[in-house]
Amino acid sequence: MIIIAEKINGSIPSMGKAIAAHDEAWIKDVAKKEADVLDQDRDFIDCCTSVEENELETMHWMIDLIQSQCDNKIAVDSPNPQICLDAMKFCKRPGMINSVSGEGNKIDLVFPVLAKPENKDWDVMALLCDDTGIPKSAADRIRVLNNIMAKAKEYGIAESRIHIDPLIEMLCTSEEGIALVLEVMDYIKEHYPQAHISGAVSNISFNLPYRKIINQAFTVVCIQHGMDSGVLDPLNRDLRGSIYAAEALKGDDFYCMEYIGAQREGIFGPVDK
Amino acid sequence: MIIIAEKINGSIPSMGKAIAAHDEAWIKDVAKKEADVLDQDRDFIDCCTSVEENELETMHWMIDLIQSQCDNKIAVDSPNPQICLDAMKFCKRPGMINSVSGEGNKIDLVFPVLAKPENKDWDVMALLCDDTGIPKSAADRIRVLNNIMAKAKEYGIAESRIHIDPLIEMLCTSEEGIALVLEVMDYIKEHYPQAHISGAVSNISFNLPYRKIINQAFTVVCIQHGMDSGVLDPLNRDLRGSIYAAEALKGDDFYCMEYIGAQREGIFGPVDK
Repeated sequence: MIIIAEKINGSIPSMGKAIAAHDEAWIKDVAKKEADVLDQDRDFIDCCTSVEENELETMHWMIDLIQSQCDNKIAVDSPNPQICLDAMKFCKRPGMINSVSGEGNKIDLVFPVLAKPENKDWDVMALLCDDTGIPKSAADRIRVLNNIMAKAKEYGIAESRIHIDPLIEMLCTSEEGIALVLEVMDYIKEHYPQAHISGAVSNISFNLPYRKIINQAFTVVCIQHGMDSGVLDPLNRDLRGSIYAAEALKGDDFYCMEYIGAQREGIFGPVDK
Repeated sequence: MIIIAEKINGSIPSMGKAIAAHDEAWIKDVAKKEADVLDQDRDFIDCCTSVEENELETMHWMIDLIQSQCDNKIAVDSPNPQICLDAMKFCKRPGMINSVSGEGNKIDLVFPVLAKPENKDWDVMALLCDDTGIPKSAADRIRVLNNIMAKAKEYGIAESRIHIDPLIEMLCTSEEGIALVLEVMDYIKEHYPQAHISGAVSNISFNLPYRKIINQAFTVVCIQHGMDSGVLDPLNRDLRGSIYAAEALKGDDFYCMEYIGAQREGIFGPVDK
């Protein structure tokens, strides 16, 4: 599982406050903690300012803070794709554009840049929404998906560089559980087997009590349906453990060696008192 | 999910010690704690002596202790089917015979008794092993299953009274995860849709660290594959939460009302300090 560590995001109240107060120590501390439990070559540290003014400058400042602590790959995260593109140059190594979607001209702005030979190691997150918003049916999300993937082919961007977020919505207002999202995941797996299936897993538990248990169960089910990338809190020890467990159950972890190794490294398991 | 509460079992060291010491208070306390978090009409309290001598007397004594604390249904649990049958009369209400299998004459001893009109409300657990032991392949377990179900039909025992344990083995020695057990579950669901899919879930994590996280993930996956019965610790709060979460994800819990209700009742969730 490729982890896109979610904690450096201004829409999280404590982080938003740290950004507003220009609290460098806070941001550096979070970056360090995330980096400590991530794989440098597999995972990403997301960086989202959520500010309304001076977004690019703020992004630059935050990327530098992260890079002062670690050499991890960064997912440059903004609803404005031009900001993502402009921030690429601040990154010491290729990372991820987070994100494009079927909205407006996002694809036609971002894909040509990613198609350049010098950007061949950059990945991209693609959300399955468009100018109509979040499609209500699996069929409509698949339509958005097929459009995005056709564009990727047109621009010569390999499937394996694309992380697809089928858009995870809160379970508490769903009448049929997660059937819609699993249908989209199954479709991706069948039709675009090299693409990554991703998503912001904690959205599922919005407005429910004891969210951690829903998040864990959801992640386990998604992994069974091919999810191999996720925007999540890498410091959530039980969630990390659930991911290793799900991969072992799926048969992707020979004799549970990865599970056992991660537990020994302290990525999950009981904390010594 | 039908819970068969597993804690009153002499093979658990603390319970074995209590049985040997004739510690009535201990056994009554466990029975009370289990009953407090079970549904009286849906769930069962398992009762297994694990003693070598005086098994029937011990079973009688333990059943009486349980019934002094609650009116829950009892799963009479012994490797000796005659003991199970002889203990039925000690139970105040119909429960479960735990268990039969393809071994020896177990089926032909137990099914005629369950077929009697006065025993029509008794359920039975059927393990998919036979005189060759635990079959190594899904196909061989399915063969045992089909034999047992043919016998059930012959004796006129409804599918819905049968809980099928596909036999859960430890993950750490498996090269392909739980593919075998899921294949058997999928077969049961397709061919015997009224039967219950069950199993002793904690077997999966034997010899692995931080077993709880494997048990939770496994249970979630099994529920997606139709498991609706399980031998487990009803006092394991995170496991209980995972079961409610898995049912909601599957779309079996309208607007998560069961999940929210169980959390409010205190069946899972953080414990107040």
